[in-house]
Amino acid sequence: MNAEVITAGTELLLGDVIDTNAPYLSGKLSQCGIDVYYRTTVGDNKERLVRALETAAGRSNLIIITGGLGPTVDDITRYAVSEFAKKNLVRNEKSLLKIRGFFDVRGIKMPESNIIQSMFPEGSLILENRNGTAPGFITEGKGVIIAALPGVPWEMEEMFQNALMPVLEKKGIAGRGALVSRTVEIAGVSESLVNDRIKDLFEKSINPSIAVLAAPEKITIRATAKAETVKKAADMADELITRLAAMFPDNIYGINGEKPQQALGRIFTNKNMTISTAESCTAGMIAAALTEIPGSTAYYMGGINSYSNESKTDILGVKSEVIEKYGAVSGQCAEEMAESCARLFKTDAAVSVTGIAGPGGGSREKPVGLVFMGFYVNGKTDVMKFNFPGSRDIIRRQASSNAIFEMVKRVRG
Amino acid sequence: MNAEVITAGTELLLGDVIDTNAPYLSGKLSQCGIDVYYRTTVGDNKERLVRALETAAGRSNLIIITGGLGPTVDDITRYAVSEFAKKNLVRNEKSLLKIRGFFDVRGIKMPESNIIQSMFPEGSLILENRNGTAPGFITEGKGVIIAALPGVPWEMEEMFQNALMPVLEKKGIAGRGALVSRTVEIAGVSESLVNDRIKDLFEKSINPSIAVLAAPEKITIRATAKAETVKKAADMADELITRLAAMFPDNIYGINGEKPQQALGRIFTNKNMTISTAESCTAGMIAAALTEIPGSTAYYMGGINSYSNESKTDILGVKSEVIEKYGAVSGQCAEEMAESCARLFKTDAAVSVTGIAGPGGGSREKPVGLVFMGFYVNGKTDVMKFNFPGSRDIIRRQASSNAIFEMVKRVRG
Repeated sequence: MNAEVITAGTELLLGDVIDTNAPYLSGKLSQCGIDVYYRTTVGDNKERLVRALETAAGRSNLIIITGGLGPTVDDITRYAVSEFAKKNLVRNEKSLLKIRGFFDVRGIKMPESNIIQSMFPEGSLILENRNGTAPGFITEGKGVIIAALPGVPWEMEEMFQNALMPVLEKKGIAGRGALVSRTVEIAGVSESLVNDRIKDLFEKSINPSIAVLAAPEKITIRATAKAETVKKAADMADELITRLAAMFPDNIYGINGEKPQQALGRIFTNKNMTISTAESCTAGMIAAALTEIPGSTAYYMGGINSYSNESKTDILGVKSEVIEKYGAVSGQCAEEMAESCARLFKTDAAVSVTGIAGPGGGSREKPVGLVFMGFYVNGKTDVMKFNFPGSRDIIRRQASSNAIFEMVKRVRG
Repeated sequence: MNAEVITAGTELLLGDVIDTNAPYLSGKLSQCGIDVYYRTTVGDNKERLVRALETAAGRSNLIIITGGLGPTVDDITRYAVSEFAKKNLVRNEKSLLKIRGFFDVRGIKMPESNIIQSMFPEGSLILENRNGTAPGFITEGKGVIIAALPGVPWEMEEMFQNALMPVLEKKGIAGRGALVSRTVEIAGVSESLVNDRIKDLFEKSINPSIAVLAAPEKITIRATAKAETVKKAADMADELITRLAAMFPDNIYGINGEKPQQALGRIFTNKNMTISTAESCTAGMIAAALTEIPGSTAYYMGGINSYSNESKTDILGVKSEVIEKYGAVSGQCAEEMAESCARLFKTDAAVSVTGIAGPGGGSREKPVGLVFMGFYVNGKTDVMKFNFPGSRDIIRRQASSNAIFEMVKRVRG
């Protein structure tokens, strides 16, 4: 069984919206043993969507379309599927009632335009939308199964999980074999070095297969295993990832996409430790990342985004002599920031960042990308210096993720 | 002239990586008058990539492929293009020297595996990679032009702009007519209401065309105009967006994708005002957003991420009676947070946020999603209460963007 994902929307083709539906669906389908070999995006144009359905039908057994089920004129999915499958659109009274109900509970009169959302290709199985007005549907045509889901991600994901998946399982399409990926993320080494070190294993491994992906913050090594059950595939992938991780003992950034803030949360919760943040150039990014984690309130006490020099001295308590002598972007300032922060918030650990994110403000001695970090852990402080390449955004992201990564290294021991 | 974008990579099909190359390329191509009707993603499989090239050749004149040019075994783009175009791979000595040089300046011996990156289909025009080792190339086959670019976004974007675009312009492919989109972003009204209000204009407008996109923080109305020159298309789109924006005078969140933090930066710079932040449940997200903007150091003085109650009283200076009487999640606490923050950082304005992001910590009186915000501007403070739907992440994102949006409303007058 192999599936093709088609995402419909001119906004996707124009580059105004990043398509997160296709990767979500590809990932979910792979996990339940449905291969996805192709993914196609088309604009809000009925003829081209029909052509894309025809191309997909020639190479896949299941087509999942997202988008184009809304009430407006540019929503063309139901028309295209109707034409492709040669099935007339017919109104479903039960769906219409539900759509009306969606507006009623909000005290709004249903606009006439929403009626179209209760029309489906004859004989379709209707998929309930719990997070919005547009129901989805499943139908068949030219020997393939076609499922149409809404384009809004939180509506689509809910419908896929709770309405479409049960149908695919019942039809015996999902659940026949499983594909499971596991990853180890590496930081502080080059992609070439990673490739050379894993070369032998890479060439020998067919199932699980290995892939290497580079990003500014890290290099990801992925092992993907295929087996009859999710458990067996997971075991195979886990075993390989453990071997791969052992090749980079000092540079493990995360396992299975665990973000450093998740690792930090686990460690600080286990050790019953607390942490605070003092951020200049990253101004709140580390704090925001740490508090992504539910339950972070147990160990994250708070932080100061000391963007101005005055806030570094008056609120955080850095000695003004330090800033005068060494500058706000200096190892000395980072050290003081971390120590003052731990004192102020009464925490066991504190991380500080001060640097030049650019694009302006750089000099020959202190170029854009220069960042100092201070790490205070149980009475001891150390300082690190970085030179990050890239834009303001990339520099801040690297600084933030490296600060958390380095803190994890110091406490996980 | 119409183009198809093919992105190659199993990591894209598995959903491990979000494809940002395809939207970047679609957007850039549209802007210079090249229509993009289809976009395809295939895994690291040579046969399927060849098939995708054949399908694309049947419906497009220009194919741009990203990814699969790396030095590893799963990099199959050059082989697929060579097979499709029936052109042997030949080594380019100049490229090999450049690749060696890339390693030399870093003091690393070039791994043998990188040699493959200097092999191209016979007669290709080679595209320089200034940000990495893999050069790109342009070749022709079966009546279409094929350009292959690397998959790493910052390498691909640089190569597209500085190496591929000049070639497309020289060949007279780019620059023949232009497509320009302009947007207005609306907040605080439903998608149906937006649709109903713009219905007449929507149906009458063919060029520029109108599209409506919904997201948690905002609804975007887009006008896309096609004309002979970028200037003319931009004027047409601007004119329509101005009319559309005038229909929602109190709910304009941004124009042309301007984020509220950009609007805030413009206004605070012009008025020579300063701002600080006091964040509980968003813990640094507002600060991080404000400091995305280059030059924010001129108006953003800093902030306190007062995640614990103790940090709210001891560092920020909220009266402990207020927390005891009304709770940390209350309008009274938000008001005190904003006022204390402005006092502490000596700023003209301050914004505060306190709420329940979940998933835990909610109660019947104070459910997950309840958020209070305080807005201090030049001596006056007002408080707003929100009930945001969705996950922890969505609640925090909505709280952060709404806080900035509401501050913009108060100062732009």
